[in-house]
Amino acid sequence: MSLGVWLVGGRGSVAVTSIVGALALRAGLAAPTGCVTELPDLSGADLPGFGDLVFGGHDPSAVPLTKKAEALADAGVVPASLVAAVHTDLTAVDADIRPLPHAATQAATAGLIVADLVEFRERHRLDRVVVINVASTEPVPDDDPAYESLARLETAMTGERQVLPPSALYAYAALRAGCPYVDFTPSTGARLPALAELAERQRLPYAGRDGKTGETLLKSVLAPMFAQRHLEVRTWSGFNLLGGGDGANLADPAANSAKSASKQRVLQETLGQQPQGTVRIEYVEDIGNFKTAWDLVTFAGFLGTRMRLEFTWHGCDSALAAPLVLDLARLTAAAHAAGRSGPLTELAFFFKDPLGDVPHGLADQWRLLTEFAATLTPRSDPEAAA
Amino acid sequence: MSLGVWLVGGRGSVAVTSIVGALALRAGLAAPTGCVTELPDLSGADLPGFGDLVFGGHDPSAVPLTKKAEALADAGVVPASLVAAVHTDLTAVDADIRPLPHAATQAATAGLIVADLVEFRERHRLDRVVVINVASTEPVPDDDPAYESLARLETAMTGERQVLPPSALYAYAALRAGCPYVDFTPSTGARLPALAELAERQRLPYAGRDGKTGETLLKSVLAPMFAQRHLEVRTWSGFNLLGGGDGANLADPAANSAKSASKQRVLQETLGQQPQGTVRIEYVEDIGNFKTAWDLVTFAGFLGTRMRLEFTWHGCDSALAAPLVLDLARLTAAAHAAGRSGPLTELAFFFKDPLGDVPHGLADQWRLLTEFAATLTPRSDPEAAA
Amino acid sequence: MSLGVWLVGGRGSVAVTSIVGALALRAGLAAPTGCVTELPDLSGADLPGFGDLVFGGHDPSAVPLTKKAEALADAGVVPASLVAAVHTDLTAVDADIRPLPHAATQAATAGLIVADLVEFRERHRLDRVVVINVASTEPVPDDDPAYESLARLETAMTGERQVLPPSALYAYAALRAGCPYVDFTPSTGARLPALAELAERQRLPYAGRDGKTGETLLKSVLAPMFAQRHLEVRTWSGFNLLGGGDGANLADPAANSAKSASKQRVLQETLGQQPQGTVRIEYVEDIGNFKTAWDLVTFAGFLGTRMRLEFTWHGCDSALAAPLVLDLARLTAAAHAAGRSGPLTELAFFFKDPLGDVPHGLADQWRLLTEFAATLTPRSDPEAAA
Amino acid sequence: MSLGVWLVGGRGSVAVTSIVGALALRAGLAAPTGCVTELPDLSGADLPGFGDLVFGGHDPSAVPLTKKAEALADAGVVPASLVAAVHTDLTAVDADIRPLPHAATQAATAGLIVADLVEFRERHRLDRVVVINVASTEPVPDDDPAYESLARLETAMTGERQVLPPSALYAYAALRAGCPYVDFTPSTGARLPALAELAERQRLPYAGRDGKTGETLLKSVLAPMFAQRHLEVRTWSGFNLLGGGDGANLADPAANSAKSASKQRVLQETLGQQPQGTVRIEYVEDIGNFKTAWDLVTFAGFLGTRMRLEFTWHGCDSALAAPLVLDLARLTAAAHAAGRSGPLTELAFFFKDPLGDVPHGLADQWRLLTEFAATLTPRSDPEAAA
Repeated sequence: MSLGVWLVGGRGSVAVTSIVGALALRAGLAAPTGCVTELPDLSGADLPGFGDLVFGGHDPSAVPLTKKAEALADAGVVPASLVAAVHTDLTAVDADIRPLPHAATQAATAGLIVADLVEFRERHRLDRVVVINVASTEPVPDDDPAYESLARLETAMTGERQVLPPSALYAYAALRAGCPYVDFTPSTGARLPALAELAERQRLPYAGRDGKTGETLLKSVLAPMFAQRHLEVRTWSGFNLLGGGDGANLADPAANSAKSASKQRVLQETLGQQPQGTVRIEYVEDIGNFKTAWDLVTFAGFLGTRMRLEFTWHGCDSALAAPLVLDLARLTAAAHAAGRSGPLTELAFFFKDPLGDVPHGLADQWRLLTEFAATLTPRSDPEAAA
Repeated sequence: MSLGVWLVGGRGSVAVTSIVGALALRAGLAAPTGCVTELPDLSGADLPGFGDLVFGGHDPSAVPLTKKAEALADAGVVPASLVAAVHTDLTAVDADIRPLPHAATQAATAGLIVADLVEFRERHRLDRVVVINVASTEPVPDDDPAYESLARLETAMTGERQVLPPSALYAYAALRAGCPYVDFTPSTGARLPALAELAERQRLPYAGRDGKTGETLLKSVLAPMFAQRHLEVRTWSGFNLLGGGDGANLADPAANSAKSASKQRVLQETLGQQPQGTVRIEYVEDIGNFKTAWDLVTFAGFLGTRMRLEFTWHGCDSALAAPLVLDLARLTAAAHAAGRSGPLTELAFFFKDPLGDVPHGLADQWRLLTEFAATLTPRSDPEAAA
Repeated sequence: MSLGVWLVGGRGSVAVTSIVGALALRAGLAAPTGCVTELPDLSGADLPGFGDLVFGGHDPSAVPLTKKAEALADAGVVPASLVAAVHTDLTAVDADIRPLPHAATQAATAGLIVADLVEFRERHRLDRVVVINVASTEPVPDDDPAYESLARLETAMTGERQVLPPSALYAYAALRAGCPYVDFTPSTGARLPALAELAERQRLPYAGRDGKTGETLLKSVLAPMFAQRHLEVRTWSGFNLLGGGDGANLADPAANSAKSASKQRVLQETLGQQPQGTVRIEYVEDIGNFKTAWDLVTFAGFLGTRMRLEFTWHGCDSALAAPLVLDLARLTAAAHAAGRSGPLTELAFFFKDPLGDVPHGLADQWRLLTEFAATLTPRSDPEAAA
Repeated sequence: MSLGVWLVGGRGSVAVTSIVGALALRAGLAAPTGCVTELPDLSGADLPGFGDLVFGGHDPSAVPLTKKAEALADAGVVPASLVAAVHTDLTAVDADIRPLPHAATQAATAGLIVADLVEFRERHRLDRVVVINVASTEPVPDDDPAYESLARLETAMTGERQVLPPSALYAYAALRAGCPYVDFTPSTGARLPALAELAERQRLPYAGRDGKTGETLLKSVLAPMFAQRHLEVRTWSGFNLLGGGDGANLADPAANSAKSASKQRVLQETLGQQPQGTVRIEYVEDIGNFKTAWDLVTFAGFLGTRMRLEFTWHGCDSALAAPLVLDLARLTAAAHAAGRSGPLTELAFFFKDPLGDVPHGLADQWRLLTEFAATLTPRSDPEAAA
């Protein structure tokens, strides 16, 4: 089962770490640490192998992947020796990371994206291509009546107005090209009624959104712990310092507020109430790719006694995200092969802001995931994309 | 269903916090924060109410409960206003906290303990009495052939030798008196083959051991999180500073090593390997009842990238333990009423070092607990203890 | 040397903690912990005793001091037993905390304030009165030509416009009444050319501003440490969570930005450069009077090696501020008695944003303070205020 | 002024980082970050330049310096690019790092060490050689009457008994060879009456001991801060996790207790009392060269209010130590050139356990250091060593 992985933002830190890692895994140079799909509890799923993955993507930057990979090695995100070892393979991928297409209308731009995807799939003779958005976070768009139905959307797209934010335009084009779509960012992506309609019509699955790599991951185990012990969380305040790729962008108040809201949602959902406190994201350029998140939780116990938990998470976002990108590519492809369409709510485990009415505690999400994986057994007649 | 709760160490911090809390709950003066049995997910169980609980116990100290409760209020463990409000009720309990019985042989001492338990049960016309050990932690005893069978044990107990450590002597007497036994400490308790034999013969349930109130509770959710994300925990080091009740005792190297080992066991069980690092317990008298635990976890992610998690837990052990003591009394009583005997492995949720071959991750323990609670429905003919 | 201490914001947390503490010290019920003036290194100064202090003030609130003190006891800021012990004395002070005077023009309002101060001084037969601003933080006012000279200011004050922010109006009135003035907040206070002119004319000293009680105190020793070790501080980010008195006010972006700037100034001054990063202040009501500040410092060492320091400060701002208020009252009074006028730059030790061209490292400020204290010996003919 | 720097433990992490750094500084490839002697406040001192330093040493290991340097680069202690750039120079130093001499008596071994030092000085035509101990920490030796006078010591050294611990044997030989001696470790070094006598007779200066690189450095600014604010430190507990070079050795209880005591001394000296709590050092191999130290300080403020400070220091000991080693070599050489002999108490700034009756607060030590540096002006007739 050969699988194309098309990365929107294909020259960014997450994308390049994913590509370097997949090449290293294929070459047997690294262990699949961080890859959830390689755990015994998911071994029943019939997934494409690391060796079956072929990478492509879109990116406005023209910096060669090898150069970007070397910068990531200097920053401590990936080992320099691995980058050197996969240099040739990386150069080969370079040609498949294309510049952003642009035309006079969004309908026409979507057509160019579809053409790139189809050409990629055909040239590499791929069984399917999964499109994954790992580009910078966008501001939340205003509501628009064109979002409500596919017909209205497609009409609007023929005009001069940029009706869709980029993440949603890519989702539209992916679905049009017969490709499942995954949103790893907090951007809009496929989360519009018009696009849900398109996915259903195309019988394609989609997943998202906002990869859960650090502070929210911790919340998704700590908040249930407080709830199950009947301890009353009074305040939960978080402070994130980051300097890497998406940091400057997230410091923009518009993007920041979307992200912060998504980061607190797990509390409401697992505690049954929203404690006081917010999440702050600060861009401090010199901090680099290793994010530091500090959280203070205050809670009341028996007879009202006040207690506190503080944690500091010092993690490398790109290194945490990259194996999940590979997991999502493999799982979404297998779901497609198994005939699944619509939102893949069983993948909530991977996301801060998961699709559907799903549990937000990690343990329940884990159970959903492992049960889902067990259903991903081979079909006799896998349905090719449109 | 009137329930006697007999506390070994009945004038200690945990016991007095439990008693004050139960009296306050009965009087409607406090919410059941921290009481797991009051959560909706356990509401199906047929448990004795807070108003059905009657407290008694053994303790070498003669300090009145009201005095001890006022000291706990000064230390910030319980509100002074609550202590004042339950003053009369507390005084009434005082008479049921008896001095430690002592006779020439352990057999004779056990007889005195049994007599105290029976007298307590009959005088208060209780349906049953659950004995809970909340006394100071003991050193681990050496292996002894007398532990291997009830017959050998009872023979040895007729001699002058103190064959059983106190916690096990209480477990023996409790079972002899027809009382279920719970060990909330890391001491030996009922965990000897001879006592398992006695519990089986008496058709009595028992539970333990070592109440999971802080650092280990966190480990039981964080370690599964790392495992489910396929992140490789390399080191896990913990440092506990505490000044309250049991602190000086735990600083004793013998008790300390038992406790520390029990605190790291969850890592081996949930991670499938034992990371480097140990748990240190330090007694710093001035720290008082609010323990501070600091943990550093270092782990490797994708392509070997090193990352870190640090947390500081600032908790009041007595306040965390007390509602669990009430939970265990209620659940163990209900299990007895429902005809259960032997180790209550489904109560692993409450313990650092649970009985039986059970999961150590909190989420799995929670599932066991809620499923267990659902079975605790009333029996038509509840079997009284021997 | 009887000394009136007139507190602007006399029913606030800092004021009431100061008053309760002074009364307790006078009664011999507490040790002078936190009072810098009681250290051996300052013992040469001829200062008024705690028993010589008489409190008065202005406050818009009418809540009795005893009620406020009990609330502070409930919040853990002062011991309930002390509040009970000084109850009568506290009630006696109550009458001297007056409502805010208000008239049609600021000139007239100033006249009312002066009258209150003079009446207080005369009724209690005080040698002098020091006015200390412990009211809520104000936004920074825009520049105004009226601030440039006393003549222009006094002309403007006769109009309807509120030309001065409240803190500066109090400073004006204090100086007019012959009282030294101390600003313990980041507000404007005496820091206007027109008021400096008035102080000089009245031969009165003044001090400020913004009491250094926590995070900035730490910066004032840690930043010099990095500088003296030639370590290159790259980023310094701070996050303050507070729920008490002034918290909601500081969360206001205008006040917040003034405060945050003042909190980073010590870095520029002691490091010789401004590292990346900012200070955030968040109001989380439930956090209460115990502020938690978390700081992350990243720095480069030999050959560029990156290292980190994190700290968490969990302090009670009112308890930290109150003894410094007493210190400042005593030192400013003694300076006045010794004939000093103009800005008391030697008191930089107490302030985040000290007056004058002074060192910002705590060690240098300490040296200035102790040398200053040594000059505060009795004068034969202490000059009474105008 | 050409200066030999003879490193006892010349192939260890601290030594190799020092050598690589000095070579890089000489070549203009790095800035002198971390070098205190390069600060403007010390610019008056007449010190040898980095280009004047010539390295030699003793070490039991035979691992080439280049190999060790590459291992340090892999561990993130020094940049790989710098190691590559100084490869040739490093190889040249290799020949001057000699194996440990050993003879039948300590007198004879000392003779071999002296011979190595003299040969090194003459071959490189050095003005002087400073011997610096950066070898592993030794256990504290028992008292010995031979330590009391030079005569008794030298008699004892002719016997078969190993009367001196290695650090003291090196100090003896250094002084015999006319070389000033610096102890950067907590070992005995020159701190014996017999060796003080020898230093005096040889008119040689010596300095020590135990380089202050992390946790104690912080204590030396934080403890004075608490003292100057009259805050009462109640407990100070520290926990050090380290995996690098000296870690396994320090985990040895004997060495550990010496180190821990030295680390708490600053508290007694600056606070005037010893708070409760201890310092623990744990060896966790996987932690590597970046040590993590966590400290909890609890303190009482005004009216007894309890507050807390926690910090985590994540530092690279070798990178923190190396520039100080270069500083000490330069300063000790200049002191010798200026005719100083005996203990250099003015260098307390650099040490955890400084020589003489000196202040332990960093600010006072800094003042001593800068005043000392100002005296290190050239002499017309620099006295050569014996």
